[in-house]
Amino acid sequence: MTFTITQQRNGTYYYRNSAGFHFKHGGRIDELALTYTTYGNLSAAKDNVVVIHHALSTNSHVRSHAKNTTRGWWENMVGPGCPIDTQRYYVICINNLGSCFGSSGPASINPNTQQAYACDFPQLSIDDIAHAQYLLLQDLGITRVHALVGPSMGGMISLSWAWQFPHSVNYLVSISSCMRSFPSNIALRSLQREIIRLDPAWQQGHYQSTTKLAGFLLARKLAHLSYRNCSELDEKYLELSAHDKQSRNIKTYLAHNAQKFISNFDANSYLYLTKAMDKFDLTQGEHNKNQILAKLQTKTLIISVNSDTLFHPRQQQELYHALTQAGIDAQFIEHTSAYGHDTFLVETDAMGQYISDFIAD
Amino acid sequence: MTFTITQQRNGTYYYRNSAGFHFKHGGRIDELALTYTTYGNLSAAKDNVVVIHHALSTNSHVRSHAKNTTRGWWENMVGPGCPIDTQRYYVICINNLGSCFGSSGPASINPNTQQAYACDFPQLSIDDIAHAQYLLLQDLGITRVHALVGPSMGGMISLSWAWQFPHSVNYLVSISSCMRSFPSNIALRSLQREIIRLDPAWQQGHYQSTTKLAGFLLARKLAHLSYRNCSELDEKYLELSAHDKQSRNIKTYLAHNAQKFISNFDANSYLYLTKAMDKFDLTQGEHNKNQILAKLQTKTLIISVNSDTLFHPRQQQELYHALTQAGIDAQFIEHTSAYGHDTFLVETDAMGQYISDFIAD
Repeated sequence: MTFTITQQRNGTYYYRNSAGFHFKHGGRIDELALTYTTYGNLSAAKDNVVVIHHALSTNSHVRSHAKNTTRGWWENMVGPGCPIDTQRYYVICINNLGSCFGSSGPASINPNTQQAYACDFPQLSIDDIAHAQYLLLQDLGITRVHALVGPSMGGMISLSWAWQFPHSVNYLVSISSCMRSFPSNIALRSLQREIIRLDPAWQQGHYQSTTKLAGFLLARKLAHLSYRNCSELDEKYLELSAHDKQSRNIKTYLAHNAQKFISNFDANSYLYLTKAMDKFDLTQGEHNKNQILAKLQTKTLIISVNSDTLFHPRQQQELYHALTQAGIDAQFIEHTSAYGHDTFLVETDAMGQYISDFIAD
Repeated sequence: MTFTITQQRNGTYYYRNSAGFHFKHGGRIDELALTYTTYGNLSAAKDNVVVIHHALSTNSHVRSHAKNTTRGWWENMVGPGCPIDTQRYYVICINNLGSCFGSSGPASINPNTQQAYACDFPQLSIDDIAHAQYLLLQDLGITRVHALVGPSMGGMISLSWAWQFPHSVNYLVSISSCMRSFPSNIALRSLQREIIRLDPAWQQGHYQSTTKLAGFLLARKLAHLSYRNCSELDEKYLELSAHDKQSRNIKTYLAHNAQKFISNFDANSYLYLTKAMDKFDLTQGEHNKNQILAKLQTKTLIISVNSDTLFHPRQQQELYHALTQAGIDAQFIEHTSAYGHDTFLVETDAMGQYISDFIAD
């Protein structure tokens, strides 16, 4: 047995595997750590598991519970009587490898140097994130999951999982995500990374964890702007400014959100995770997509949001058509909302209905 | 006589007025300099003048001519037999006050310090830019112009001119512009300014003119991305990457364009001009728009581009409805194109037709 699991005071589980982890593009870490949260009860047959793959900005805290009463990022999606009903399903959400909420990442201590890995952390891919989570489930004795549910970057991880381990999944829900990053996605995220690195306080990744990184703040403002649809923001802030010229405006809105975010997030993690997103391509860059994608033997629901300018509906349509052509049983929903990419966080009732109908099928 | 005009070797005219210039928000410069280019011949009655107001990034060099054979930014728009026909019109394009192509701006030498003004240049407004140009035309003995034509920021200047000096203009063409900046415009441009200031090489504006400013480069990449429609860029670069993975991609495209731009543009000018755009509001922030806008007694053509995500069609519609409600004779054209905000630079034939039909009316 190379792993240990301990429950922490905030209710999360801390998995450590001393066998380490080998990354797809080379490099390894001597110990793999993953922090995860569970909701509901595992059935005796271990056949009621739903894995939620979280997005770039969030973590394993999907909803509040007795040991951590702060609101989760998908608070009403999971729980008794909720769309992902914990009276029926055992829900697991694992902090992504490379992130900074208890799983191995650039802020983890490198046992060889006793310093944070920072930019010495191995190059990360979406496939690595899915692979590490799969290894954890194997160690939990779970060989097949009922469903993978992933919004945004989480949707990439769900697809990668189902593609790498095709006999391990019944249902897959990919929300506001894609099968590969588009040039405009890459441009926006690479600009964010360049802004972080422009800041002299970043110090080639060797900043003190308490340093306020002005570049990271700026990068996140840009990211946040891309998460919402400009029409909605324009309407909201034109309306506000008509009533009150001085106080709330779009600049203070972006600054407030970005400040909140960077006070909890590691800038190097942000560099690694966004780069992994940029490089994601389920077709592995091959021209013969059908053969590649046919491996993904999972019934798939693809949810698209009409106002999403970051993960544009074209990207979900591409995924849907590619899967269908490869003979995969895929369904497509275009959801109408004003909230852009962030809709999955805002309109949980509608999203929940789609998910619940599909995975109960 | 407080002014002099000299023609320079590249054919541009250099206007210097020792009466100086007072800015709307306070502050003055002791000498006002404006560089301009003319095409065609002024009629004896001085009644055939078309003033073109250039956008943020460009200058008075609208098209090539004998003394400067480099291609202009609107090469085929102006000339004999062109949409703005120099056999009929006398065309003047003046480098904007605050810019860096021969007109007074932050890079100009402050006579009191013998150093560049840098951030000691007075706060600039769109009204100032229009006002300075109007003064020049007065000095040229031109009291009324046949038409003002302004794309993008130039459209703001045209509107400001016609509003400040309502009896001086017959026709106004505002292309991909607005009557006030929207919150999302302000957010994008303020991010660009923050990126420039984040760069330690910017040195509070006191950089050497030969310094390559990494922050300015980054800011301009972001700007350039906003000038095009992401769908067009995605389509183009997905196609290119399918054929040639290594060479041309969206990152090298943005880097190439931004590099070319910043090698000719002053970063402080960029800060001043974008801030002036952010603050532009033809309605002067008043609730009683009709009364304010009724002052603008000019027949106006508003051209909108469906794929423009920076100056969104909503902004031209707002202008059109506001003018119409204020009793101004306004026309509206929504042009269909894939090229986003940059369409006015790309589809000159179509734009030229709209302009030429309207001002010949």
